[in-house]
Amino acid sequence: MPEFVLTLSCQDRPGIVARVTTELAAAGGNIVEAQQFDDRARRRFFMRIQFAADTPLATIAAGIAPALRDLGADHTLRRSEERKRTLILASRSDHCLADILYRWRSNDLHIDPVGIVSNWPRSTYPHLITDDVPFHYLPVTSETRRGQEHRILDIAEESRADLVVLARYMQVLSDDLASALQGKCVNIHHSFLPGFKGAKPYHQAHSRGVKLIGATAHFVTADLDEGPIIEQDVERVSHRDTPEDLVRRGKDIERRVLARAIRAISEDRVLLNEGTTVVFS
Amino acid sequence: MPEFVLTLSCQDRPGIVARVTTELAAAGGNIVEAQQFDDRARRRFFMRIQFAADTPLATIAAGIAPALRDLGADHTLRRSEERKRTLILASRSDHCLADILYRWRSNDLHIDPVGIVSNWPRSTYPHLITDDVPFHYLPVTSETRRGQEHRILDIAEESRADLVVLARYMQVLSDDLASALQGKCVNIHHSFLPGFKGAKPYHQAHSRGVKLIGATAHFVTADLDEGPIIEQDVERVSHRDTPEDLVRRGKDIERRVLARAIRAISEDRVLLNEGTTVVFS
Amino acid sequence: MPEFVLTLSCQDRPGIVARVTTELAAAGGNIVEAQQFDDRARRRFFMRIQFAADTPLATIAAGIAPALRDLGADHTLRRSEERKRTLILASRSDHCLADILYRWRSNDLHIDPVGIVSNWPRSTYPHLITDDVPFHYLPVTSETRRGQEHRILDIAEESRADLVVLARYMQVLSDDLASALQGKCVNIHHSFLPGFKGAKPYHQAHSRGVKLIGATAHFVTADLDEGPIIEQDVERVSHRDTPEDLVRRGKDIERRVLARAIRAISEDRVLLNEGTTVVFS
Amino acid sequence: MPEFVLTLSCQDRPGIVARVTTELAAAGGNIVEAQQFDDRARRRFFMRIQFAADTPLATIAAGIAPALRDLGADHTLRRSEERKRTLILASRSDHCLADILYRWRSNDLHIDPVGIVSNWPRSTYPHLITDDVPFHYLPVTSETRRGQEHRILDIAEESRADLVVLARYMQVLSDDLASALQGKCVNIHHSFLPGFKGAKPYHQAHSRGVKLIGATAHFVTADLDEGPIIEQDVERVSHRDTPEDLVRRGKDIERRVLARAIRAISEDRVLLNEGTTVVFS
Repeated sequence: MPEFVLTLSCQDRPGIVARVTTELAAAGGNIVEAQQFDDRARRRFFMRIQFAADTPLATIAAGIAPALRDLGADHTLRRSEERKRTLILASRSDHCLADILYRWRSNDLHIDPVGIVSNWPRSTYPHLITDDVPFHYLPVTSETRRGQEHRILDIAEESRADLVVLARYMQVLSDDLASALQGKCVNIHHSFLPGFKGAKPYHQAHSRGVKLIGATAHFVTADLDEGPIIEQDVERVSHRDTPEDLVRRGKDIERRVLARAIRAISEDRVLLNEGTTVVFS
Repeated sequence: MPEFVLTLSCQDRPGIVARVTTELAAAGGNIVEAQQFDDRARRRFFMRIQFAADTPLATIAAGIAPALRDLGADHTLRRSEERKRTLILASRSDHCLADILYRWRSNDLHIDPVGIVSNWPRSTYPHLITDDVPFHYLPVTSETRRGQEHRILDIAEESRADLVVLARYMQVLSDDLASALQGKCVNIHHSFLPGFKGAKPYHQAHSRGVKLIGATAHFVTADLDEGPIIEQDVERVSHRDTPEDLVRRGKDIERRVLARAIRAISEDRVLLNEGTTVVFS
Repeated sequence: MPEFVLTLSCQDRPGIVARVTTELAAAGGNIVEAQQFDDRARRRFFMRIQFAADTPLATIAAGIAPALRDLGADHTLRRSEERKRTLILASRSDHCLADILYRWRSNDLHIDPVGIVSNWPRSTYPHLITDDVPFHYLPVTSETRRGQEHRILDIAEESRADLVVLARYMQVLSDDLASALQGKCVNIHHSFLPGFKGAKPYHQAHSRGVKLIGATAHFVTADLDEGPIIEQDVERVSHRDTPEDLVRRGKDIERRVLARAIRAISEDRVLLNEGTTVVFS
Repeated sequence: MPEFVLTLSCQDRPGIVARVTTELAAAGGNIVEAQQFDDRARRRFFMRIQFAADTPLATIAAGIAPALRDLGADHTLRRSEERKRTLILASRSDHCLADILYRWRSNDLHIDPVGIVSNWPRSTYPHLITDDVPFHYLPVTSETRRGQEHRILDIAEESRADLVVLARYMQVLSDDLASALQGKCVNIHHSFLPGFKGAKPYHQAHSRGVKLIGATAHFVTADLDEGPIIEQDVERVSHRDTPEDLVRRGKDIERRVLARAIRAISEDRVLLNEGTTVVFS
């Protein structure tokens, strides 16, 4: 039986779950997994429902529409098997790009890559097969940034991208681009935020003698290092690790954390909650 | 507003959530946090709902009773602030016992200790204050086991214990006692199960050169090391750790894992699912 | 056979290990465990040697003295079984204090507690037995800080403390006291440094939606949150954790990290290296 | 200045470090990083010394030869930049193979792949570029096993392989092949050993409700699941993970653990100690 995922967030009030699940049951839906969370401080309610039903999506959508309208809910509804169309932005370092492509091909990430944009030429990645994904070489300088970013937005639109992944894309997005991609663009920050913002975080970490290094996947906002956090992880390091060792080990954490964030997003498990997130594991 | 926790499990079928949450909404309940899970292989549905309501428990219970009966659901319903009455069994090693008492007093574990049973005398624990919890010294030999276990059951009944914690209690329970405590007795196994069952697991681990050691909290069943697992954790070790070091480090893992399991149970987050568990984190 | 620990750091040059271990062998020493590390960026060499010998400490010390002088080495030499005399400073929260005392009594921490100083009265800790350790109640206000700190230093001197542990001592040390305790005072910072310095780190973490929280043990320097890091650890958290949950979970990390740092120091495994540390695991 | 790595193990006795490091100093060697460990239960001493020297390898080797002979030491000595010639065996699943190749090309693993052997044809891996490494397709049935294994040994010899990696190679080696590769063949076991030996470990784990799954890299011995352990890691799982999810997540752990084991071996950090290992981190 086909499966669907419904997410919603709305102002908290009694009866939300009853109202919505009653409509789903009326549409023949059988809940497979669901989670609800009430952010009491903000008085906002979040829900993710994964359900099986032998009913067309349009019928289900029509069935729950009045309830969602009454609740004033932000919501998404889609078939589970439908994959998010994903545009990947990369730069010279390809560890995240290569990892995403590998996981996609081995059916570990259920996304649909619709394009790769890099400010480095295709020949930067001799050992990567990308025949099956359009590759866009978009070099950029401070003079050409405006035009290059327009081109990125065009590609995102033309390819109907649902998700834009900054896979160690080493350019700071302009506020305009960040705003245009608001809520659908995820970045991997090569540090355990909020520590070591700014340049060369691994060198900073080394000089402070930290015993754990980490990486952070977050939504992109105008303030690049301050977007809502989706996922983080760390690894233990020691005085023996040089800054170069930390960079190498950091890459491992980066690709793992980014892949987990993409997976969570691809399964509609991540809901925005002002400056933070609700991640239904 | 008072809060309540409802858990249920029943055969899967459409409309369970709608039916139950509609009754809760009718009783004025507002969901704070909830999770649902359908074990598709076993066709069994699990749910935990934490909700706020200005209604007496009896009224809520009466309201959902018909739905629960129709669903043939196993369920629990109680006020969140009501604490599980907990009987703690210990032996010579007091690291888990001391930790539970500490966490209880510092309001980290919301339980209500109704007694400590030990097969070692009170003087075994000179640095532990237990004035506020009845202490029962119940020595045991193979000849007196039957009587001693009867005494334990009596104490559990007299103290109306909801939960019995084997806090490194070093006696193997008889099948009779294990059965009598079925589903309400948790044990901490000093190993990462299913590895290293049996005696001296840390020595076994050392001789095999394992790089991680762990502990496992599980429900007690007739087969002591095979009960449904509630929580596990590990720590990294090296060739430098002697078996004695592993024992010492294992104690740290044991008390941490046991405390987490008790907390999950105390919040009704652990549901039995045949030989395994559903733990709503 | 008695065991000894020798640590040294000096400017790097060839032959250090050969020179020192030849002297140790001449004194009948047999190496049990040793580690050497050359910080090439700073051109400084670090070594920890644990060895067994049937020779008096004074004889060994005399044997290696010329070598150490030639090398211009900072060094320590002591019998392994000799315990560091440790003064513990605490405030209202006793989770670290209780944990240290518990670990000491259960022979998990090989230290020798010579006193507890608190700016809260003894009655703050009704469930803690401290009969075997002198308790000093030293209340403090901004007016009396100077005198109170003098008293702390006096106690440290009179009790011949080798180590001063700030076990969630909630007073900022003056620069004078920090300097006086330089290199022998360890603090537990209730955050994963360098993130969330300053007040209420767990509330900061919550509002940013971090997925891991941590704690940091470090040497105390004039800049309280910037001392050389000894140990760090983290735990996974989620949107369900309120700031109060983070505080509670943070306590668990704090006591674990502090205990590990104290153990490392008690075994002479931590060497200062300018603003960072060499920790021989 | 060129760097070298010396490892040795021998029966414990006083003066080993002094003797060897004195010879190294005489040869102009300057220690960069070193570790010594005395397994007191087995009375066996282990040492790894990484040093810089402007002396030819042969000269150094000649210098320490008498000492090593006197000590009856097993030892290795090589230039740090010399890479271990590595033969990779794979089957249908390519997650470990792809990961090793990626890490090698991105200079994360300092090995020298001299061949890939698979019992599946090259077309099994359409997205893998292997132009730069000889690919050997060696199908196998129970009838042809003897011959196929001979062919593997031939390839290992012809390519002068120092290390053979079973990168999820799904054939059980015969005792003969296991013996022939003794001490230079590493396997990744898709489970946290010693738990869940045998077939379908992830299904076993699921039915037991374990909360952590792991993988183990170990040396291959005649008893496939019992070789000395080199590295292990785990990840947290929940009731929501199906056996298929565990397989997917297990792959991530497998490739990470195998890569760490290969790196440790490639840096001569792993010494055999009867049925266990000494891993100098």
